[in-house]
Amino acid sequence: MALIVQKYGGTSVGTPERIKNVAKRVARFKQAGHQLVVVVSAMSGETNRLIALAKEVQASPDPRELDVMVSTGEQVTIALLAMALQDLGYKAKSYTGGQVCIRTDDAYTKARIEHIDTERMRSDLDNDTIVIVAGFQGMDPGGNITTLGRGGSDTTGVALAAALKADECQIYTDVDGVYTTDPRIVPEAKRLPTVTFEEMLEMASLGSKVLQIRSVEFAGKYKVKLRVLSSFMDDPGEGTLITFEEEDSMEKPIVSGIAFNRDEAKITVRGVPDKPGIAFQILGPVADANVDVDMIIQNISHDGTTDFSFTVHRNDFQKAKAILEESLSHIGGASVTGSADIAKVSVVGIGMRSHAGVASTMFRALAEEGINIQMITTSEIKISVGIDEKYMELAVRVLHKAFELDKETQPLA
Amino acid sequence: MALIVQKYGGTSVGTPERIKNVAKRVARFKQAGHQLVVVVSAMSGETNRLIALAKEVQASPDPRELDVMVSTGEQVTIALLAMALQDLGYKAKSYTGGQVCIRTDDAYTKARIEHIDTERMRSDLDNDTIVIVAGFQGMDPGGNITTLGRGGSDTTGVALAAALKADECQIYTDVDGVYTTDPRIVPEAKRLPTVTFEEMLEMASLGSKVLQIRSVEFAGKYKVKLRVLSSFMDDPGEGTLITFEEEDSMEKPIVSGIAFNRDEAKITVRGVPDKPGIAFQILGPVADANVDVDMIIQNISHDGTTDFSFTVHRNDFQKAKAILEESLSHIGGASVTGSADIAKVSVVGIGMRSHAGVASTMFRALAEEGINIQMITTSEIKISVGIDEKYMELAVRVLHKAFELDKETQPLA
Repeated sequence: MALIVQKYGGTSVGTPERIKNVAKRVARFKQAGHQLVVVVSAMSGETNRLIALAKEVQASPDPRELDVMVSTGEQVTIALLAMALQDLGYKAKSYTGGQVCIRTDDAYTKARIEHIDTERMRSDLDNDTIVIVAGFQGMDPGGNITTLGRGGSDTTGVALAAALKADECQIYTDVDGVYTTDPRIVPEAKRLPTVTFEEMLEMASLGSKVLQIRSVEFAGKYKVKLRVLSSFMDDPGEGTLITFEEEDSMEKPIVSGIAFNRDEAKITVRGVPDKPGIAFQILGPVADANVDVDMIIQNISHDGTTDFSFTVHRNDFQKAKAILEESLSHIGGASVTGSADIAKVSVVGIGMRSHAGVASTMFRALAEEGINIQMITTSEIKISVGIDEKYMELAVRVLHKAFELDKETQPLA
Repeated sequence: MALIVQKYGGTSVGTPERIKNVAKRVARFKQAGHQLVVVVSAMSGETNRLIALAKEVQASPDPRELDVMVSTGEQVTIALLAMALQDLGYKAKSYTGGQVCIRTDDAYTKARIEHIDTERMRSDLDNDTIVIVAGFQGMDPGGNITTLGRGGSDTTGVALAAALKADECQIYTDVDGVYTTDPRIVPEAKRLPTVTFEEMLEMASLGSKVLQIRSVEFAGKYKVKLRVLSSFMDDPGEGTLITFEEEDSMEKPIVSGIAFNRDEAKITVRGVPDKPGIAFQILGPVADANVDVDMIIQNISHDGTTDFSFTVHRNDFQKAKAILEESLSHIGGASVTGSADIAKVSVVGIGMRSHAGVASTMFRALAEEGINIQMITTSEIKISVGIDEKYMELAVRVLHKAFELDKETQPLA
């Protein structure tokens, strides 16, 4: 007997029929003798419907009140799933985040979980009852309803698994695991039987958004065994297990996957004085305007001046460029240039720590296709390049092939 | 400065535009220097939508889970109203029933309020904040969500007014007060500036369903000053005040109003032995089948047998008749007859206690129109007759005229 936390997203519970299917899957695990805690999201489309309704009343809805409102989406789903399980003959009880004491801070619409009191859930589990918990929500110390932000249901699942010391946290989604890259771009993409926590972090933040990044961080912090599976396959198989142990890197493929992000824009400030504080002078006003910055590049200087580049989301391009043009004379730079059609393509792999050849393989593969690299950034387990967006699919395909990700991987277990 | 509890029903908050209008009305009272607690229902249609969704998953939805689900309807409205008030520049906070500690028993879908903790609301009110509370819902001692049953938002409003010792509880609805009868049947019907608690009880249960009967009982028990007003008129005026003091009956009109109920059916068991226990033998199986019985008539016996009649809702007619036909031989009756098209028409008035002539005026007026009376029941402040349904409108009109309800009432204040 194991204690399993399962999480089903909005698409998996999008209709009464799908909720009944989820109930059947949960029932199969219960039938196998396991204890189950099930976390669900709002039915797909519901959260957006509620937000649109709020905006009809208040152009920029009050965050506390918005949380009171959107939290109802999950509250409907938990009740429906409990009903579906009861209809199959199982004992099931639904709880809001507040009811199972998921305590968060009071940062409405993006709250962070601080504590979970498991007593009530344990008592139900010991009483042979399937516990169903609303994802994405909690309660602050003042008893106000909070939400964890978009995708927060994953975080709820992982946090419950951590608090309950569950044997496994299973995230059911519309894909059957983590792939070497997006199969829509590279049909030969393969499902990874395992992926390390660090790789997953890099993949998630780079656009392969299978799991919300915060939930992965949470899983890493509390060593929760996290598995991604398909909620639409009759037999979802093993999915992808996210591991935390440092496995022998000789056994690991050097590169695990190719991630990408299409919607970037590059801004360069040329000829800025190469002196302390200049990076802050450039990026401070950008951050103040709530523009998120992704890649940042600064190379060596010539004659006391240097060029400073960074990327932002394409939607923020004009805004960020205008800010810099305004502060250009204050910074002492020569000019601001930019390009709104940059894509970022990254190779990710825990194995590359000990393999120096990854970068050269990557750059050669791109060069052979005549793809010009505009920017390069690296981390310990990732190399990212900024390229013209029109080459993105091509770059992903050649890199996927160059690192032999289309070949069968060895079983690692 | 007064402390006012206002309640707005589903139609009054049926669209974002209407919610903004409610906010403007609340703001006017706040502007006038009052403290406000506002109770709202779910947007019209929302509760039915949720119940239908539940039934798609479980034919007969689990009551606990149904409450988790339908309580979200009000939760959406409270947030929207808080947003609308903030948009007008007022401080406003929304609370679910559980959050302001509306403690109920655990009779899911029809819970009764046991206690309300006012501390949190008081603190907000003292802080110049408009408090918005979800109607229709509470929390049982185990922390489970409960609902008070259909129309329970009125009860929430009255209960909050009682707990907060509010100066007045204003129920805003789609009519502008309690009328002498339904203006759709008698265009000359007049709004009553005041109506007594007892009259209101009789009116509510007889089909003039302006207020939920439980809320009126609650108001009577705790002496809450209750006022019914229109939520759709720009200036709702004074509405109708429901009074509890025994006013000098000389000042009161003898009859306050004509109530009616269209959907009744009559069942008669003829020739039953006139002996103790027979009424129970007849009605016991009917009650066991969850059929509500309204009027019950038994007259004196002849030769040791009597006729026993009662009315049920028309939808239950076939069911009730079948039950009695089955138990007829056991009861020892001669036959079961019935009629599915009965209407009940009642004259109601606290003043009739001291006026013997009401019954004769009523019966004469009906006789003059050739309307046959099939059944008669009376209480201290009400006389009801069962008549053929096709005469109902006519009966209401002639009685309204016979008791001069179309004449201007004297101001009572």
